[in-house]
Amino acid sequence: MTSTMKAAVKRRPVPMATEVAQVPVPEPRPDEVLIRVAIASICGTDLHIYEWDEWAQGRIKTPLIQGHEFAGSVERVGSSVSGYSKGDYVSAEGHIPCGRCGPCRTGSPHVCRNVRILGIDRDGSFAEYLTVPASNVIRNDPGLPVEIATMQDPLGNAVYTVSNATVPGKSVAIFGLGPIGLMAVALCRAKAAGRVIAIGRENEYRKALAKVVGADLVLESDGGLVDAVLEATDGEGVDEVLEFAGNDQALRQAIRVVRPAGGIHILGIYPRPVTVDMSEVVTKGVTIHGIHGRLMFRTWEQMRGLLRSGNVNLRPILTHRFPLERYNEAMQVVKGGQCGKVSFPMEA
Amino acid sequence: MTSTMKAAVKRRPVPMATEVAQVPVPEPRPDEVLIRVAIASICGTDLHIYEWDEWAQGRIKTPLIQGHEFAGSVERVGSSVSGYSKGDYVSAEGHIPCGRCGPCRTGSPHVCRNVRILGIDRDGSFAEYLTVPASNVIRNDPGLPVEIATMQDPLGNAVYTVSNATVPGKSVAIFGLGPIGLMAVALCRAKAAGRVIAIGRENEYRKALAKVVGADLVLESDGGLVDAVLEATDGEGVDEVLEFAGNDQALRQAIRVVRPAGGIHILGIYPRPVTVDMSEVVTKGVTIHGIHGRLMFRTWEQMRGLLRSGNVNLRPILTHRFPLERYNEAMQVVKGGQCGKVSFPMEA
Amino acid sequence: MTSTMKAAVKRRPVPMATEVAQVPVPEPRPDEVLIRVAIASICGTDLHIYEWDEWAQGRIKTPLIQGHEFAGSVERVGSSVSGYSKGDYVSAEGHIPCGRCGPCRTGSPHVCRNVRILGIDRDGSFAEYLTVPASNVIRNDPGLPVEIATMQDPLGNAVYTVSNATVPGKSVAIFGLGPIGLMAVALCRAKAAGRVIAIGRENEYRKALAKVVGADLVLESDGGLVDAVLEATDGEGVDEVLEFAGNDQALRQAIRVVRPAGGIHILGIYPRPVTVDMSEVVTKGVTIHGIHGRLMFRTWEQMRGLLRSGNVNLRPILTHRFPLERYNEAMQVVKGGQCGKVSFPMEA
Amino acid sequence: MTSTMKAAVKRRPVPMATEVAQVPVPEPRPDEVLIRVAIASICGTDLHIYEWDEWAQGRIKTPLIQGHEFAGSVERVGSSVSGYSKGDYVSAEGHIPCGRCGPCRTGSPHVCRNVRILGIDRDGSFAEYLTVPASNVIRNDPGLPVEIATMQDPLGNAVYTVSNATVPGKSVAIFGLGPIGLMAVALCRAKAAGRVIAIGRENEYRKALAKVVGADLVLESDGGLVDAVLEATDGEGVDEVLEFAGNDQALRQAIRVVRPAGGIHILGIYPRPVTVDMSEVVTKGVTIHGIHGRLMFRTWEQMRGLLRSGNVNLRPILTHRFPLERYNEAMQVVKGGQCGKVSFPMEA
Repeated sequence: MTSTMKAAVKRRPVPMATEVAQVPVPEPRPDEVLIRVAIASICGTDLHIYEWDEWAQGRIKTPLIQGHEFAGSVERVGSSVSGYSKGDYVSAEGHIPCGRCGPCRTGSPHVCRNVRILGIDRDGSFAEYLTVPASNVIRNDPGLPVEIATMQDPLGNAVYTVSNATVPGKSVAIFGLGPIGLMAVALCRAKAAGRVIAIGRENEYRKALAKVVGADLVLESDGGLVDAVLEATDGEGVDEVLEFAGNDQALRQAIRVVRPAGGIHILGIYPRPVTVDMSEVVTKGVTIHGIHGRLMFRTWEQMRGLLRSGNVNLRPILTHRFPLERYNEAMQVVKGGQCGKVSFPMEA
Repeated sequence: MTSTMKAAVKRRPVPMATEVAQVPVPEPRPDEVLIRVAIASICGTDLHIYEWDEWAQGRIKTPLIQGHEFAGSVERVGSSVSGYSKGDYVSAEGHIPCGRCGPCRTGSPHVCRNVRILGIDRDGSFAEYLTVPASNVIRNDPGLPVEIATMQDPLGNAVYTVSNATVPGKSVAIFGLGPIGLMAVALCRAKAAGRVIAIGRENEYRKALAKVVGADLVLESDGGLVDAVLEATDGEGVDEVLEFAGNDQALRQAIRVVRPAGGIHILGIYPRPVTVDMSEVVTKGVTIHGIHGRLMFRTWEQMRGLLRSGNVNLRPILTHRFPLERYNEAMQVVKGGQCGKVSFPMEA
Repeated sequence: MTSTMKAAVKRRPVPMATEVAQVPVPEPRPDEVLIRVAIASICGTDLHIYEWDEWAQGRIKTPLIQGHEFAGSVERVGSSVSGYSKGDYVSAEGHIPCGRCGPCRTGSPHVCRNVRILGIDRDGSFAEYLTVPASNVIRNDPGLPVEIATMQDPLGNAVYTVSNATVPGKSVAIFGLGPIGLMAVALCRAKAAGRVIAIGRENEYRKALAKVVGADLVLESDGGLVDAVLEATDGEGVDEVLEFAGNDQALRQAIRVVRPAGGIHILGIYPRPVTVDMSEVVTKGVTIHGIHGRLMFRTWEQMRGLLRSGNVNLRPILTHRFPLERYNEAMQVVKGGQCGKVSFPMEA
Repeated sequence: MTSTMKAAVKRRPVPMATEVAQVPVPEPRPDEVLIRVAIASICGTDLHIYEWDEWAQGRIKTPLIQGHEFAGSVERVGSSVSGYSKGDYVSAEGHIPCGRCGPCRTGSPHVCRNVRILGIDRDGSFAEYLTVPASNVIRNDPGLPVEIATMQDPLGNAVYTVSNATVPGKSVAIFGLGPIGLMAVALCRAKAAGRVIAIGRENEYRKALAKVVGADLVLESDGGLVDAVLEATDGEGVDEVLEFAGNDQALRQAIRVVRPAGGIHILGIYPRPVTVDMSEVVTKGVTIHGIHGRLMFRTWEQMRGLLRSGNVNLRPILTHRFPLERYNEAMQVVKGGQCGKVSFPMEA
């Protein structure tokens, strides 16, 4: 293999400033694996870094190769790694837990206090190669298409959220129709939810996608939303709410539309404190679940099985493919929101 | 309405002895509902009573109208009943809990100590009319076909068992391919189980049905079964076993094929004590769940949602229909095992 | 028995307006039980009604005999009641569920949509007799002192909250040191919580009680609270928070002091919407549980066992006893907050 | 430190054959810690190895230093170990999981397919020093007495079993009064179980200990046992059974005495297949939980908190102390059964 590779490098701590260039292929440490990237895809977080928002300014060190969604093959393994060899078809869990903090020691590494994330705290997958600790590598089923495999990181978020809500036979309202929300719609349909209500905001493209992947009903998140959901559920409200929108209005509506003893499962992050009617949560005996990352590695095993089932219709969510050279253009598409998942096939 | 009705009456405490005759229409008590039966169906238990096995001899008082699976419409309500009126489309939970014992008072009426069962401890549904306590009546969705609605009692057993195993994304082995086992296959498929392995005994008719309703793999419960399941699961074993067979060999195999930390969910009843390797259960950290009846009424609500989802393929399990006059013939078909669910449409 | 009884009757829809007078003994309906009250006790809700706050104005119809906490003995049973007879030592669950709504039918009558409450929606226990539906009557252990038995309604709130948090071996922070908060402290101590941190506001009387019933540490809910809890838990935060305070500052502090993957269990009701950092809930993978009433009747069975264990030190919480004639004085004591539980023994 | 140490070495694959001798101090590998043993204690498994039973013959390679229960201090750490330093007060989880098998990757390393155990598959703690992988080391609370700390491995078995049964407020029957059964009695008492029934076999010494550490009732496991338990529970049966006896009669009795919807939690290992009435398990809706090892490391965190609570009375279980030189004598005491936990303080 060559000693340099193509990569999208964010050079400086300012908006954009990303250049596709040749850089050295990284060297795996003894407990790491070097992976040749077949395809990578863009997460909303990547846009935050690209646009250098407040969060990015506080967290990111440049230069950085972004990207934590990918599929590829093992190129080389570190000296102490066993269990993987050249050519293995793999992806990776992007959150690297410390293994020593309280949460890590009690079965909750997904909320590790010292987590480091691929493409955020170390170089990631918007490149021809990347290194990953062997313990974070995921072996993919041979029959899994690479364009599905690259989506497993966000799909894992959706799998964890949907699984936490135990949806079979239940009525479910899904707020937020970005790629993860759309995946959640497909998962609820795949698992025989009784009624899947998808709720979005002024984005007909994504509302149409929600319908395609299995929503029974697609609603606009406006003033009439609460009444519409109640009407669609014979006045009962939904059994479970999945909140991917990350806006306070959605959460307030969630509390209104969930039935007594129901659950609200939140993956969305709110830019500022939210004001909500917590007394309704209490008197209805509702539970609010904060969902973060993916369970290591239980979520991945569930995802493997769900993908094997053939029930999950994800293809329509794969809407755009760009060569890495058109990095800036791809980011603009993500920003525009007229898309599902946007990917970079590396071997065009 | 007339004062008499057609019914299949088991006259005497001996095998068979059932006669289709005109008998008085029963009178609902103040808290009961009189239901006009549109269709009824035959449970394996009905065959036990029909053939007057040891269990039936100890439990059943004749004369008795058997039958606890049915769908129909409310004909008349008792003086203290509210919430139902003539024409409502209904079925019923067949287990009538006492409401006062320990299990009833702590949320477990499905294992009531003083349960009375329709068609077993009181007259049932193999007739044009039956009475049911109002609290046991289930309102059916208007769009639910009667031939599916009548199967909800056994389907509820399957729903409870499959739900207890939380199957989405998991590998599942299902022992026993009678109607409930077949329903469980359909439910696992509907809920995106990763791999559904159906296991039967020398009944090609039912093995073929298992394939039709969604089994990935259908195996014979013989000496090679354990190896075959391990091979089909990359040596891992299955995440969950559903045991509907009620024979000791199946349970022994279940313990062998379930993976560490997996679950075995048993609805089957064993005619005699079983001899099993409990140490394997312990060292693998496996859990064995006894499943009885249906959760009141959580299982019914789940079932309603599952049926609404459209994911559950039950039609192929409905294989035979007989007028009530051909009662004895229908029982022979059930006994022969070359069938799925056998029903009596009342309004031919 | 006589036909009249002593009762505290709130006469008119204005603050106070309660008169202790002779009124007719109520007549039990067919499914009800007439109970002779041995002791009753005052809930915070009773003060809201007494003072006629906004909530009371919207809900309460006068004249009303308040009170839902009591212990006594069966005096007479309605015509259709079985299982109880004169002299039985009883208390009652104060929430009377409808039995027909969605939550009632799926095992959640504690969040019944049409609940009616003793002493709020119908006459209650601040009288020598009251009637209760037989299905809500609780049989007390013979050895249970009446002054403990009368506290079972609020104790049940505490039992449900503490039980929901699974506290054995865990560090627990308890916000709010009214009677229910104090009971929760005693329960956490009884169940071997690893560390019990009680948090109150400017009420030295109750902070001292918290120490007596088993708090390891008692803190003031001020600006330094978060740091103090973190310091007391080696920087980890507490495993579980129990929130009885019903004020927004407490909830914000709860979110700060709970550890990743921990739980917040809220029984307190907030007078207005709260503003909280929900993103911290999400990124820490925390769960917020709304707790309402008592599980029917699982909580009562747990409570019976907990009281039998002898581990729960409740006596110090019983601080004041008044004859019913001194009703207004008793209410002032409750209002003043220099008390634990205040009771009315009826047989002085 | 010196280069040799005192150790009890089983020299040959025959019964006994253990010699206390000077051997080289082991060298920690890069990821291991060398620990100076302050005290070690004897597990029943050690007796199996000592007596060279069938299981030991199939598993153990000699020479071997047995022992997996201990407390001590870090003497030296391997080159890649961080987080521990000389003098740290520690014990260890004895099961070393592989980290790569299915169970390990899905949160169940306690049932790892390739587990290696201290003192069984590699040298253990019946010596002045031993090595342990750093990831298995447990840091003890400074105030924890060494004679309690050494018992944490078996106490962890008891903690896991009791925790799995959620005992607060429940009635519990405990079969088997060896050290782990006795610890379970103490834990049930510590957690406010409503009624603790300890069941042993012809060993008055241990039955007396059960009473001392908190059993409400101590029964003989004979023909009258089932009736006695039912009588003690008002005919209801117990909510939970903890089975440490590992004999088939105990398990048959467990199934009889557990209430509908109750649980049976088995840590005991059966020398041969058991014959049980599984239909009673099914019709009562009972769950049987196989319990193995300790959850890594959730059980250890629970145990830490339980020990901190001060509620757990373990001291009476510590009955015998021997210098390591009297190894054979100590084993005979364990074999005789007139003891609780038997330990070897190393620094006499």
